[in-house]
Amino acid sequence: MSHAVSPLAPKSYPELPTIGGVRFATAEAGIKYRNRTDVLLVVLDKGTEAAGVFTRSKCPSAPVDWCRAALAAGGKARAVLVNSGNANAFTGKRGRETVKLSAAMVAKAVGCTPKQVFLASTGVIGEPLPPEKFDGVVEAAAKRVAEGGWLDAARAIMTTDTFPKVATRTAKIGGATLTINGFAKGAGMIAPDMATMLSFVFTDADIAAPALQAMLKAGVDASFNAITVDSDTSTSDTLLLFATGRAEGAPRITDPRDRRLAEFRAALNDLLLDLSHQVVKDGEGARKFVEVRVKNATTKAAARKIALSIANSPLVKTAIAGEDANWGRIVMAVGKAGQPAERDRLAIWFGETRVAVKGERDPGYSEQAATDHMKREDIVITVDIGLGKASDRVWTCDLTKEYVAINGDYRS
Amino acid sequence: MSHAVSPLAPKSYPELPTIGGVRFATAEAGIKYRNRTDVLLVVLDKGTEAAGVFTRSKCPSAPVDWCRAALAAGGKARAVLVNSGNANAFTGKRGRETVKLSAAMVAKAVGCTPKQVFLASTGVIGEPLPPEKFDGVVEAAAKRVAEGGWLDAARAIMTTDTFPKVATRTAKIGGATLTINGFAKGAGMIAPDMATMLSFVFTDADIAAPALQAMLKAGVDASFNAITVDSDTSTSDTLLLFATGRAEGAPRITDPRDRRLAEFRAALNDLLLDLSHQVVKDGEGARKFVEVRVKNATTKAAARKIALSIANSPLVKTAIAGEDANWGRIVMAVGKAGQPAERDRLAIWFGETRVAVKGERDPGYSEQAATDHMKREDIVITVDIGLGKASDRVWTCDLTKEYVAINGDYRS
Repeated sequence: MSHAVSPLAPKSYPELPTIGGVRFATAEAGIKYRNRTDVLLVVLDKGTEAAGVFTRSKCPSAPVDWCRAALAAGGKARAVLVNSGNANAFTGKRGRETVKLSAAMVAKAVGCTPKQVFLASTGVIGEPLPPEKFDGVVEAAAKRVAEGGWLDAARAIMTTDTFPKVATRTAKIGGATLTINGFAKGAGMIAPDMATMLSFVFTDADIAAPALQAMLKAGVDASFNAITVDSDTSTSDTLLLFATGRAEGAPRITDPRDRRLAEFRAALNDLLLDLSHQVVKDGEGARKFVEVRVKNATTKAAARKIALSIANSPLVKTAIAGEDANWGRIVMAVGKAGQPAERDRLAIWFGETRVAVKGERDPGYSEQAATDHMKREDIVITVDIGLGKASDRVWTCDLTKEYVAINGDYRS
Repeated sequence: MSHAVSPLAPKSYPELPTIGGVRFATAEAGIKYRNRTDVLLVVLDKGTEAAGVFTRSKCPSAPVDWCRAALAAGGKARAVLVNSGNANAFTGKRGRETVKLSAAMVAKAVGCTPKQVFLASTGVIGEPLPPEKFDGVVEAAAKRVAEGGWLDAARAIMTTDTFPKVATRTAKIGGATLTINGFAKGAGMIAPDMATMLSFVFTDADIAAPALQAMLKAGVDASFNAITVDSDTSTSDTLLLFATGRAEGAPRITDPRDRRLAEFRAALNDLLLDLSHQVVKDGEGARKFVEVRVKNATTKAAARKIALSIANSPLVKTAIAGEDANWGRIVMAVGKAGQPAERDRLAIWFGETRVAVKGERDPGYSEQAATDHMKREDIVITVDIGLGKASDRVWTCDLTKEYVAINGDYRS
């Protein structure tokens, strides 16, 4: 079950500063893995505000249902319990029971209400997750939580990930300097019988839950909602954002349109983009990181759909794996997207090389230049629809034999 | 460029009887391949009626545009010219010129108007197809057309196909016995730089073009529109149906609701299903033929979308390749389809084995029975949505490393 680290992994990890009001402990609960941490407990100071976005799946996991209800109950957070090895998804009544019992367990250990506890699980689908797995583990973890240890926290929630994904930014609101730290896991939308993109972001800014939620929702649209490894959507995707308000002199923000938020919003969006790109770079079997740009579409929604049609096309992705500047497949993917497009207005670039224009091969096109671009680790594909003014970008990876091997050769 | 014959290929080919008014010749034009036929000329008797359905791509090939216009011009047909090796797609003005010139060439050789000539091309996208390739070839072919030779015709239009696809049926209309013969090619929606599903069906029934068109349109919905190899859609997909009216005593039919058509319609639909299944069985790298059944969905459209979400999911298809009864991935694919579904009402079967029910693993489920089913060549996956009364079926194949190898390892 161990795979070589992705060739697209970062060469080094940033040092994440502590964030006032955020403390961690990891533990080995033996849920599925042995000799590795599989539980993460985060304890948050009183007054922490929460926001979250979740999978659009019609079959969400029990923890996703729980978090949605917890957010609706007021958006206050005191703790987060995450486990890897079991997704507690499609586990029926027992799954709901486990969620309730483990939230109660955390609430008791931390001293808060169950609705202030957020839960996330990643791993096997359909396998019951006995709440006894957390017996003693949560209590002990609650006693030794400490600031710092971000990389360990990121490691505890990994499943088929080949590297931990962390990011940090700072930004000013008024005179105060705030920190934002985040980590994520995810390698396929679902890895062999395991699930999910999970991401947790923390800041010491003092922002009320509704404002936090508005910023998060806007931020994911151009980051986590704009990435695709294999077009498959997990039942457990969860992204939570917590604001402790503990930074010195941090002004209280309640309106997402507050102009003092500009720099913070940019830093948050940048961090979300960074984390989402790391998820793609750890895509199962990935060797190439691909940006698909669509411009001059009729609407932004059309641009997004065309970009995703390209990014999800098995034939485009296998061509990229083969370092093949196969622009005919881009035409095919534009054509099947079902969005306004006219063959005779299309232009296509690989990197800086325009390979097709006005519905046919670019007469001046250099096959060598296009092929050189395909040999890079970072590929940029640009499509000009020529019908409007809207543009969008999405990111994906190539489709290799390793993807099939990871997902088809065995069941873990 | 040659691949081993698909393990799902038929063990033998049916003998196709001649159809009055349908004559063939194949030729070697050296468009791309050497030492094999790559041109097929079909000459049809006067009075032949035509119907057709085409790719929904917004970037259709020049021959697709031509056929649509020819059908709109009256639905009479005297000839079909098909070539493999070049799709004449995304070839701009020159592509349109080639189509016009080659239709004129055929019209002259056969003695009809250009609008009575139907064209189809399959192969490389974006490469100009010089009309001179057909010089002499068409004229010579027109002189030696003969009845019979169906298997040769099917072979002449192959690209990455590993076997020719033919089918035949008979049916009565009134007192007359009619024959329907058809052949198809297609192995991926687009094979390496080559395109397309092409299919040609011929009958000696006497049916007016509008009635023929209505029957064809209804027939493809449950056959060619219900198959998927890789979710990619060619720019050139073409299915043409011709009725020569030459069968002895065949009554003239002008109304698609004519009750005398019942048996003929059933035979036509069955032939279309047969051909479409053969295309899936020759799916690139395919080792398994998979039927996905969705029942008790809210609407037929919802059932189709859920079925296609399952059939197109890379994680479902790799699990099938790995002979893994991984029902969690079926849940995932239902959940991401965006159609009405409720986790706690879902039930899932592999073959006859119910593996999940009411939102959780079936308590009585035998892993062995499910796994035994996955080892078969023919897999049936059934999903009960439990919300309505609509059902639908689609067919696909597994996703293997060979698919990636065929589409990613080289560009032909």
